[in-house]
Amino acid sequence: MESETTETIIRATGRSLCEYGYADLTMQRIAEESSVTTAAIHYHFDTKEELLNAFLDDLVDRFEQQLACEAGDPRQRLSTLLDAVFTPSKSTSDEFPVALMELKAQAPYHDSYRERFIELDETLRAVVADAVDDGIEAEYFEAVDPATVARFVSTVVNGGHLRQVALGEDPEETRRLIEDYLDAQLGWRPEGAA
Amino acid sequence: MESETTETIIRATGRSLCEYGYADLTMQRIAEESSVTTAAIHYHFDTKEELLNAFLDDLVDRFEQQLACEAGDPRQRLSTLLDAVFTPSKSTSDEFPVALMELKAQAPYHDSYRERFIELDETLRAVVADAVDDGIEAEYFEAVDPATVARFVSTVVNGGHLRQVALGEDPEETRRLIEDYLDAQLGWRPEGAA
Repeated sequence: MESETTETIIRATGRSLCEYGYADLTMQRIAEESSVTTAAIHYHFDTKEELLNAFLDDLVDRFEQQLACEAGDPRQRLSTLLDAVFTPSKSTSDEFPVALMELKAQAPYHDSYRERFIELDETLRAVVADAVDDGIEAEYFEAVDPATVARFVSTVVNGGHLRQVALGEDPEETRRLIEDYLDAQLGWRPEGAA
Repeated sequence: MESETTETIIRATGRSLCEYGYADLTMQRIAEESSVTTAAIHYHFDTKEELLNAFLDDLVDRFEQQLACEAGDPRQRLSTLLDAVFTPSKSTSDEFPVALMELKAQAPYHDSYRERFIELDETLRAVVADAVDDGIEAEYFEAVDPATVARFVSTVVNGGHLRQVALGEDPEETRRLIEDYLDAQLGWRPEGAA
């Protein structure tokens, strides 16, 4: 579906969002950030909201791709998830968590953003729950409720994101909490974890 | 320190923030929301940032007062904390968590907001750590690291706030997670908890 032009626009949207913040994000600025004219941007996206929906769809897709590892070992799948959440991608800037938080704060005013954040959350929780379920089956993990572990992990991930943005806290603090929690619950911690 | 006028202005700031959101918050709108002229607001507060600093100081003060219960029993202190965090005050509107999240998302651009959110977090963590410490001493709780429990609780509280705003999730989901966590860690859960 995605043409090269829309992909260019979506990338420029991400960069502009990081640079100017949500309130000052305009089609004009996105055009300046890309090699695409404002007319061409308007041809593909009617409104700023539509543009940001496409940006979030792209984010959800890439997150799902990162997690679509074929590892049969559920321990490896949990490790991959923690890496996906806590290791910043080379293609995103330091301002990316800040820009994403601004969109989350706007979700109450834009159902379309909220739907996408719910999808992202459901993906994250499904990956954790499935891995925990399989790990219990394989007797790698203690028998616990996979859905509860999944909710815990995703809530702590959300908390870590907010702490990074609002307090300037190192996300490694949050990663350690999750590793301790998994150890206490499952009797397992990711390799290389402290 | 606080005069009746500044208190009136601070209350109107909170209401305006809930009604218009951060980006559209102006001295003019705060004046309309209160019986105070824009000239009088400018006399007390030079900038929107100063006004919001005063609003956050007031928030921190009220949170500290809510927690300043003289209960000697550390179990009661933890219960009071959960009530303070999860029971919405009658004086705040449904939009209050949304307005507060907008300010948290602005913290990277305003050190003065960030300082106040750090203070709020340190207060919350200190109350939890002290209660856990005293509860271990009194042999109500299992021996755990109070600082780790405090960091966990505050990170989950932050996660719950973000989930409420971004996903529209009921904060009771988060409260249950914390109660389960305290039960698993301390061997104790608040009275009346599920």
